[in-house]
Amino acid sequence: MPKLYDLELSGNCYKVRLLCALVSVPLEIIPVDFLAGDHKKSPVVDLNPFGELPVFVDGDVVLRDSQAILVYIARKWGGEAWLPTDPADMAHVVEWLMVAENEVARGPNDARLHDKFGFKLDANAAREKSTRLLGILDARLATRQWLALDRPTIADIACMPYVALGHEGGLSLDAYRNVVAWIDRTKKLEGFVTMPAL
Amino acid sequence: MPKLYDLELSGNCYKVRLLCALVSVPLEIIPVDFLAGDHKKSPVVDLNPFGELPVFVDGDVVLRDSQAILVYIARKWGGEAWLPTDPADMAHVVEWLMVAENEVARGPNDARLHDKFGFKLDANAAREKSTRLLGILDARLATRQWLALDRPTIADIACMPYVALGHEGGLSLDAYRNVVAWIDRTKKLEGFVTMPAL
Repeated sequence: MPKLYDLELSGNCYKVRLLCALVSVPLEIIPVDFLAGDHKKSPVVDLNPFGELPVFVDGDVVLRDSQAILVYIARKWGGEAWLPTDPADMAHVVEWLMVAENEVARGPNDARLHDKFGFKLDANAAREKSTRLLGILDARLATRQWLALDRPTIADIACMPYVALGHEGGLSLDAYRNVVAWIDRTKKLEGFVTMPAL
Repeated sequence: MPKLYDLELSGNCYKVRLLCALVSVPLEIIPVDFLAGDHKKSPVVDLNPFGELPVFVDGDVVLRDSQAILVYIARKWGGEAWLPTDPADMAHVVEWLMVAENEVARGPNDARLHDKFGFKLDANAAREKSTRLLGILDARLATRQWLALDRPTIADIACMPYVALGHEGGLSLDAYRNVVAWIDRTKKLEGFVTMPAL
């Protein structure tokens, strides 16, 4: 059974738990004491020199970064459904994995890290980036059900959590009805599991 | 022939030009006047709502984000060489695409944007992140020739440019001999093309 070095309140860890639930892969959860800094200590830092969660272990395969872990799970257990191999389809999914790694991380995720966990970050800059991102997401979702393709993919799994947790970073989704509808669609996927505050 | 909306001095645009050269795909270059803000105007912003370069167009396929474009080129023209479809191999490549999108972008790329282009960024924070990243890269490359697999992949193409341009952001690679050796290996790949200051 694959193992997840996990923090329950991390949206990045949640993505991994969610995709495993959606593709019916059982997961051994290894909770890591984030407040004690255990992600900067052995064994996590031996598995991931960046000293961050999540870390995913499946036999000999050790992976860091939530987006990369989603790629692995999708390719190994998801067939063509969650990350297709067609060049254009795969690249379109990856475009949104990069939005998750960049604009979502520097926007709503940073705003939440500041407000909820006391990280020393520029919260105003994070909220400005969030507002710009939410506008782009809302425009895109005005004519589409899902971010990358005409079905849910890991693009949606990667981007949804921190957007949906925006209220924990002082963001309101009230003006972004297409984003709210997309989050609701995600929550209705068969096998969906939630996390605190979502 | 695919088209690249391009800025010659952008490491992100250069990655695309480099991979196309390595896989022998001819590319129509459409220079965009960055200083005039043309990346925020039509036609670029119609193709990419984030208003950034590069943008890649291949027939009906329009792509933003240099890492996603590398995925497309690798899958369409590179066979299994530059981005394999095996779940673990693909995920290991994607781990480093995410480092390019996050740690490289917030480290050496931001330091260069500040020093060379006058962007209002926290240059000290960018240099601190760069130093941490360079340490991790140097340790990894102490026992390996390439970042993700035992051969060059788009992981290397994605991470190399801004690391190699670090001197334009006030960074020295003198203490990171494994990183320097890796850059030199990349420069010897058959079909390699360079960019200004590299």
